[in-house]
Amino acid sequence: MRALEEKILQEGKILPGNVVKVGGFLNQRLDVEFLMEMGQEIARLFEGEQVNKVLTVEASGIALAVTAAAALHVPAVFAKKHASANLSGDMYTAEVYSYTHKKSYTIMISRDYLTADDRVLIVDDFLACGNAVKGLMQMVDEAGATLVGVSAAIEKGFQGGGDALREKGIHVESLAVIDSMDDHSIQFRA
Amino acid sequence: MRALEEKILQEGKILPGNVVKVGGFLNQRLDVEFLMEMGQEIARLFEGEQVNKVLTVEASGIALAVTAAAALHVPAVFAKKHASANLSGDMYTAEVYSYTHKKSYTIMISRDYLTADDRVLIVDDFLACGNAVKGLMQMVDEAGATLVGVSAAIEKGFQGGGDALREKGIHVESLAVIDSMDDHSIQFRA
Repeated sequence: MRALEEKILQEGKILPGNVVKVGGFLNQRLDVEFLMEMGQEIARLFEGEQVNKVLTVEASGIALAVTAAAALHVPAVFAKKHASANLSGDMYTAEVYSYTHKKSYTIMISRDYLTADDRVLIVDDFLACGNAVKGLMQMVDEAGATLVGVSAAIEKGFQGGGDALREKGIHVESLAVIDSMDDHSIQFRA
Repeated sequence: MRALEEKILQEGKILPGNVVKVGGFLNQRLDVEFLMEMGQEIARLFEGEQVNKVLTVEASGIALAVTAAAALHVPAVFAKKHASANLSGDMYTAEVYSYTHKKSYTIMISRDYLTADDRVLIVDDFLACGNAVKGLMQMVDEAGATLVGVSAAIEKGFQGGGDALREKGIHVESLAVIDSMDDHSIQFRA
């Protein structure tokens, strides 16, 4: 999605540790009109695949999941990373190792919200090593639901998570794939 | 908003500790089409007030903030509760005591994303004691921004946070106000 690549080049900042900071439009500050466009693009990429649920992880995946779900006219579900008084009953859980934070955390979804009838599109803001996606896929599998595909706004192609999923035959659509980056430049996959 | 009251009665569950569980449409599972309607209602309630930024706290406030911001055609900003590698530079911070979790936490916003030019509408899924709102208001004040008002999907009127804000002259609009509840019934404010 050319408009996203341009926005990353114009507004993104590269921080140490392979972090692309896009807090100005995708994270913390949300350019909601642009998020709506990205959501529509995701809906277009998975058109005809009968997605009936968008699945993400709190917190930064929620905004894009909402706009993708709005464009697909389906509900969204987000896995929680933190225990809450609002969570009760039977849960799916998975362990996720965060490359960014260098630690593992547990993600949780109530069993009520993910079932065998679901045709699930996993949506997230970033796809890097793909650990969060693997945790969500494990839950989709446990629920007996069907994974339709995975869509991220920004894939860090050089971290390999997206390509590993593609090699397994999973339909992965990232709106921008960064194949390499250093302090001065970002190369997108053609 | 009558449709929200009906949805709370039909789908909400009352848990111990004055918790109304609406995980089936507002929290964890997001009824995105209904969230879009709620966002439009919030935009209508603050029409003509030149809101130019919607402010919320991660994670459960993000979905409603996105739909309200979409309807108002403005960006949304969410305060983070957890430190992140994506956060850097100068931050506004505030301490918030959570009645639900019985502990305090720090919320943070990059100074880049909240400035003196902003006319801010605070949006959240719940308004109970109002502690999260007070933390956000403190940041709005510190930024020299203007607080236009506060809007929540569900206000727990019996916890007093919303009325305390109204007594200070703040424009508070909750889409449903629960004045009392017990194990068997919920009374909405007329």
